[in-house]
Amino acid sequence: MARTTGSDGEKTEAAVREAAVSLIARLGYEAMSMRQLAAEVGVQAAALYRYFPTKEDLLFTLMREHMEGLLKAWEAARPATADPVTRLAAYVENHIAFHIERRHATHVSNMELRSLSHERLTQILKMRTTYEKELRTILRDGAETGLFQVDDTGLTAMALIQMMTGVIVWFRPGERLSVAEVTTTYLSMTMRLVGAKIDGREVAHVHEYAQLRT
Amino acid sequence: MARTTGSDGEKTEAAVREAAVSLIARLGYEAMSMRQLAAEVGVQAAALYRYFPTKEDLLFTLMREHMEGLLKAWEAARPATADPVTRLAAYVENHIAFHIERRHATHVSNMELRSLSHERLTQILKMRTTYEKELRTILRDGAETGLFQVDDTGLTAMALIQMMTGVIVWFRPGERLSVAEVTTTYLSMTMRLVGAKIDGREVAHVHEYAQLRT
Repeated sequence: MARTTGSDGEKTEAAVREAAVSLIARLGYEAMSMRQLAAEVGVQAAALYRYFPTKEDLLFTLMREHMEGLLKAWEAARPATADPVTRLAAYVENHIAFHIERRHATHVSNMELRSLSHERLTQILKMRTTYEKELRTILRDGAETGLFQVDDTGLTAMALIQMMTGVIVWFRPGERLSVAEVTTTYLSMTMRLVGAKIDGREVAHVHEYAQLRT
Repeated sequence: MARTTGSDGEKTEAAVREAAVSLIARLGYEAMSMRQLAAEVGVQAAALYRYFPTKEDLLFTLMREHMEGLLKAWEAARPATADPVTRLAAYVENHIAFHIERRHATHVSNMELRSLSHERLTQILKMRTTYEKELRTILRDGAETGLFQVDDTGLTAMALIQMMTGVIVWFRPGERLSVAEVTTTYLSMTMRLVGAKIDGREVAHVHEYAQLRT
């Protein structure tokens, strides 16, 4: 059975996005041309403009979908429990897993904000704020119930997010550590950083944290 | 008295570097042209090539000097004491102060490594390793003397560096917090993250840390 035009179109669009993410990560957005991108995908430049009327539309789409994906992933991973320790652990696990799987897209999302129009930048930053607010709420709930020691909720949220996103800079699958090992170590560092208590005890070592969770 | 040619040359070279850092931070290295840079500085493009024969020479110089500056700043800030807590505090303070003062240069140094030749990339990475090794040594000394709880020295060093360098993304002078306040909060987060003990006590809150230091 012949493919429908729709599904071909979707495949092309997906191929464009994928190629764009890796080209922008390699060259930078300003340096990438739509012509180069078309050549990479194997289509005419004119075909690209059917999906993305401007280069900035393409960049914005990549960034918006990255943030939508992150918010959706957190929505799915967010535990039903009210316990701040469990919620913080889920946030860390989801954040690391999501970004390790999307190294190039994360790089593009963090580096190319300067190239968005003011209005679109505001949209992306609003989504980021929504995501970061989730973490700030967890930290605040933990501090209010005496489970966490947090000096400044905003700074702690930024510190944790940057520490976790930083994993993509050095992590390569198949090297010394697995994603699971990296995540466990980051969980333990996070719990110590926020002074987390589990069952009245301070979380100190990574193996303690692993034991407490099982 | 007329300026010597030498000092004019030095001034021009300094102006080129400064303009290059801010242009590359804004446009990306690949997108910036030497012609654009010359216009920004107010010299002929040919004059630039006297200082930097190729565009990559310029990028490499910026990155090398950034790392040399960081290593020199740490050399000057490094305390004579063997106490890992004091050494870690000095490392954090120096790292944050250095990078907050060089936001654009830090951005360029982190983002444009992809544009260096293999040999030059190796040189820059070697300097980075030297700097990171200083932190790993402090962490290892702290763990060995029972003052720190560190699960994985390499991961902890990366986490701390990325958390601290991340300050440049959101910090703006003259807003809610001063550099000193930011630094105190980051010191307290760092000490908790490594499970630091001062005088046998765990460091928990930022004010405790401040008291213990005075």
